[in-house]
Amino acid sequence: MKYQQILNTIQSDLATTPYAGKVATYIPELAKISPKKLGMHLYCINSGHYSFGDNDERFSIQSISKVFGLTLAMSLLNDELFKRVDVEPSGNAFNSLIQLEYENGIPRNPFINAGALVISDVLISTLKNPKKSFLEFIHDITGNTSIAINQEVFNSEKECSFRNAALLNLMKSFGNIKNEIEEVLDFYIYQCAIEMSCKELATAFMIYANGGKKLSNGQQIISSQKTKRINAVMQTCGFYDEAGEFSFRVGLPGKSGVGGGIAAIHPEQYAVTVWSPPLNPKGNSELGMYALERLTTLTGFSIF
Amino acid sequence: MKYQQILNTIQSDLATTPYAGKVATYIPELAKISPKKLGMHLYCINSGHYSFGDNDERFSIQSISKVFGLTLAMSLLNDELFKRVDVEPSGNAFNSLIQLEYENGIPRNPFINAGALVISDVLISTLKNPKKSFLEFIHDITGNTSIAINQEVFNSEKECSFRNAALLNLMKSFGNIKNEIEEVLDFYIYQCAIEMSCKELATAFMIYANGGKKLSNGQQIISSQKTKRINAVMQTCGFYDEAGEFSFRVGLPGKSGVGGGIAAIHPEQYAVTVWSPPLNPKGNSELGMYALERLTTLTGFSIF
Amino acid sequence: MKYQQILNTIQSDLATTPYAGKVATYIPELAKISPKKLGMHLYCINSGHYSFGDNDERFSIQSISKVFGLTLAMSLLNDELFKRVDVEPSGNAFNSLIQLEYENGIPRNPFINAGALVISDVLISTLKNPKKSFLEFIHDITGNTSIAINQEVFNSEKECSFRNAALLNLMKSFGNIKNEIEEVLDFYIYQCAIEMSCKELATAFMIYANGGKKLSNGQQIISSQKTKRINAVMQTCGFYDEAGEFSFRVGLPGKSGVGGGIAAIHPEQYAVTVWSPPLNPKGNSELGMYALERLTTLTGFSIF
Amino acid sequence: MKYQQILNTIQSDLATTPYAGKVATYIPELAKISPKKLGMHLYCINSGHYSFGDNDERFSIQSISKVFGLTLAMSLLNDELFKRVDVEPSGNAFNSLIQLEYENGIPRNPFINAGALVISDVLISTLKNPKKSFLEFIHDITGNTSIAINQEVFNSEKECSFRNAALLNLMKSFGNIKNEIEEVLDFYIYQCAIEMSCKELATAFMIYANGGKKLSNGQQIISSQKTKRINAVMQTCGFYDEAGEFSFRVGLPGKSGVGGGIAAIHPEQYAVTVWSPPLNPKGNSELGMYALERLTTLTGFSIF
Repeated sequence: MKYQQILNTIQSDLATTPYAGKVATYIPELAKISPKKLGMHLYCINSGHYSFGDNDERFSIQSISKVFGLTLAMSLLNDELFKRVDVEPSGNAFNSLIQLEYENGIPRNPFINAGALVISDVLISTLKNPKKSFLEFIHDITGNTSIAINQEVFNSEKECSFRNAALLNLMKSFGNIKNEIEEVLDFYIYQCAIEMSCKELATAFMIYANGGKKLSNGQQIISSQKTKRINAVMQTCGFYDEAGEFSFRVGLPGKSGVGGGIAAIHPEQYAVTVWSPPLNPKGNSELGMYALERLTTLTGFSIF
Repeated sequence: MKYQQILNTIQSDLATTPYAGKVATYIPELAKISPKKLGMHLYCINSGHYSFGDNDERFSIQSISKVFGLTLAMSLLNDELFKRVDVEPSGNAFNSLIQLEYENGIPRNPFINAGALVISDVLISTLKNPKKSFLEFIHDITGNTSIAINQEVFNSEKECSFRNAALLNLMKSFGNIKNEIEEVLDFYIYQCAIEMSCKELATAFMIYANGGKKLSNGQQIISSQKTKRINAVMQTCGFYDEAGEFSFRVGLPGKSGVGGGIAAIHPEQYAVTVWSPPLNPKGNSELGMYALERLTTLTGFSIF
Repeated sequence: MKYQQILNTIQSDLATTPYAGKVATYIPELAKISPKKLGMHLYCINSGHYSFGDNDERFSIQSISKVFGLTLAMSLLNDELFKRVDVEPSGNAFNSLIQLEYENGIPRNPFINAGALVISDVLISTLKNPKKSFLEFIHDITGNTSIAINQEVFNSEKECSFRNAALLNLMKSFGNIKNEIEEVLDFYIYQCAIEMSCKELATAFMIYANGGKKLSNGQQIISSQKTKRINAVMQTCGFYDEAGEFSFRVGLPGKSGVGGGIAAIHPEQYAVTVWSPPLNPKGNSELGMYALERLTTLTGFSIF
Repeated sequence: MKYQQILNTIQSDLATTPYAGKVATYIPELAKISPKKLGMHLYCINSGHYSFGDNDERFSIQSISKVFGLTLAMSLLNDELFKRVDVEPSGNAFNSLIQLEYENGIPRNPFINAGALVISDVLISTLKNPKKSFLEFIHDITGNTSIAINQEVFNSEKECSFRNAALLNLMKSFGNIKNEIEEVLDFYIYQCAIEMSCKELATAFMIYANGGKKLSNGQQIISSQKTKRINAVMQTCGFYDEAGEFSFRVGLPGKSGVGGGIAAIHPEQYAVTVWSPPLNPKGNSELGMYALERLTTLTGFSIF
């Protein structure tokens, strides 16, 4: 089957797939998004773009931004980064304080909230204008300078970030946050509030499929070695408490967000993104997970 | 660099690498093994065998046997198996009762002790003579019928298996063990007490690199789809509380044992095993981890 | 109000008090008891016996036996006993393995199952015939040699003791159980299977109200100092995860059992027992808790 | 022995008792206090005041203030208060977030930090000027209007309160904090920064020994019934993770603070306070615990 045929098949499948998931409501602004939104975009190294549905409509990337934050931090720092955040999968929900307390304020990995907050703290310490640099990084890897944050989502999330403030305070009590709590929280929420379409996200994620280089011009954004390590972290930690299930059923490194987006890659093959707002109980896009499982089944290969 | 050259380089490196690890002592019989033992074996799909050191000497495979147990169970059963054991990485040590109690007796994955005990229980319910079938399975995939258990290790482990008996009793209280506790424990310890050399283990693991087929004769031992799933579980759960670190540094699916062995694969490329008894604090072979990190660095590719 | 009037008032109150609790079912033999059973017995140092309802009918004392086990162990040993079991309240359910694992096999207190199992282990190591001595101890403090175990309850509990076997195996892995697991389990279940009436239990508990002496003949069963310590443990640990609530509402040291019995004392005043099988979600007799709250309200004094 | 003789004996004992404890250092201002400070004050209902050492020197009452906060809240509110904070002992350290997360933001009891923060939040919602009312309450029960906070301790604690801010944010995420986090934190630290001498504290605690009434004029500060309940909470929860040990060895309701103070009472008999800054590993005054154990041994009675 050709790629566009496969995507058409998935689109048909999804049209009749019942779902039990609910759109995220803990950020009021996100709760307004229609649960019917559905888009998918496949960007192949050798054969270009395939897509269906709302693949050109922007949505809140939320936790998918954590991959960009980690990439930026790893491009600026070496192994010292991993003294402040580990790379182990977490056996608890994405915002749990429990493991963090037992492990003395060192987050399990950069993709749970605690870990992403440490990465934000590192970027604030390293960059002169972290918000500007972060957005420029995304403009650079997508070649699209119109990508920006959604101010309403940003404001909305700011008002209900007590859990993240608790994480920051706990880590600061262990000495693992160096900057002001308000500043770290502000920068973290800024990243989450960025909006991108499936197509733009697939273009951005192409660097992870392409050994750290932009496909458009071959520019090395991050070393091949570090790219592999980011991919490994996506594989083991990219889906909250469902990373094993995603590896088991889909077999690709990827990252999900509570906006309903998922971005994944097959090294040296393609980047793929899907968007469907209803989330399963673990906080991942229910139809998105299914769409990617269908993709690797129909293409016949996962990375394993 | 050619493969034998790479292995020679690793052998030289290891000769001068200091280590802090200790040989496992909780099974008295294992404590007798010399910490100096060191062997590595690489078996490539296209170019055959490469090795150094004690690669032909048999050692106690211990938890590496859990991969064979899972394979056998998945070859006999379908998705119903995963109602009794999950496939998520575990954020705690390999024999912890804590997560098991919170999660109502359903082990996090088949590679922590609790999960392997459930797999043993399943095999006892399914097979007429589970010990015989298990050994025959290994004879089949290695083509070597002399592989057997070490009776002293078996006896030694039997006398100090209170933790595993606690896990079994706890799971039985939740209804997730169907057979007699003594019988499950006996079969589980039997599997751990099997002895194989690096070469034999690499040959056995070739089925995971080769889409579920024996390389020698093309016989399909387990479906390609199920092989991918086993590899995914090895990737996310194969190294106790260090699975993320192994993915991050090595980037291959694999499984370690407290006997000091590690077996790993690169899909469609090779199976590789290493044996060095001293264990790091997480219970994985210290030099073994390092040897495999060197291998993927020197060959220039992980699966990511 | 005189004591008998107070008890009559409580009896009237209970007759119209709705309850949501359920009779314990995890021991099949206990599940057969009528939820309507209800008895109360008050034994005052200065004025003798008061009672109502089924106060003369024997029931399974279950965990109330833990007080007798602790008393016997403390009468035989001094502070070395408390190296093997602590005296702190437990923030988890009565049979939880979690805290035990974090605290290296030292149970939080002698009234959670793990602690009572350690006490049983201690008694087996110290006494020639622990079952006989245990029963004789109860015969001695009650002056009633007809008290015995219920063999059906004993058999019934033996068949569903996987949780306790898990606790024993876990503690044995930490070196905190010295005897054979089967033997400790057997003796522990024996103690739980003893049957006594409210009147007999109140007579037995009189020693805790009377400075360690039998009221009938002034014989010192256990020193006054140790009696105070046992009472302190009852106060802080006697009601599983509801010890604080009981102190808060009732204000007396006491101990409950899943058979629906509660025994409590007011030092230098009285011993009181109540029996009503339906248990609240924390595992304590629902109407029993209420009856004792009414008692201290109507008499106008708790120990505080 | 007469009371003053008993206190003299304790003073002699303490002079030669070695201690391993350290003065609290997490609040820099407290770290400056001499570890040699030592005072004790016994205030008997029937026979007045007895004391030795630094009993007239003021020190930071810290967590002992939680008893006053609870008393004030219980005098203003009824059982609805206990929907927001439980009365169960806590099996973890005094500032742990873990239990709080598992129990959905409802603190285990009013004497762990989380619980005292909820009480502070309640008082802010109820009182027009909570700081003023709190201080006036202490002025009232001691008859001493010169009692005030230590501004340096207040400032010092404000700068290192990340743990408490984490607790507040976590509870606010569960909806169990109604006011601004900064305001609650400020009021909570204010209470902790109050300074009182042993004599003043013993006078204040006399209301708990005297059924809720001031001994000087018989004024009912809080009902007899509520006084008993406060005493019960002190008994089961007053000493962090050592409440059981204190009950076991001392047998009195009481409360300790990291300033090295302990206040305890014997209902209808006396209030007693002791001050010695070095803390044991559980955070309670090491010599203070010992002094109170000697007191109940030498007087021959605990409440049990």
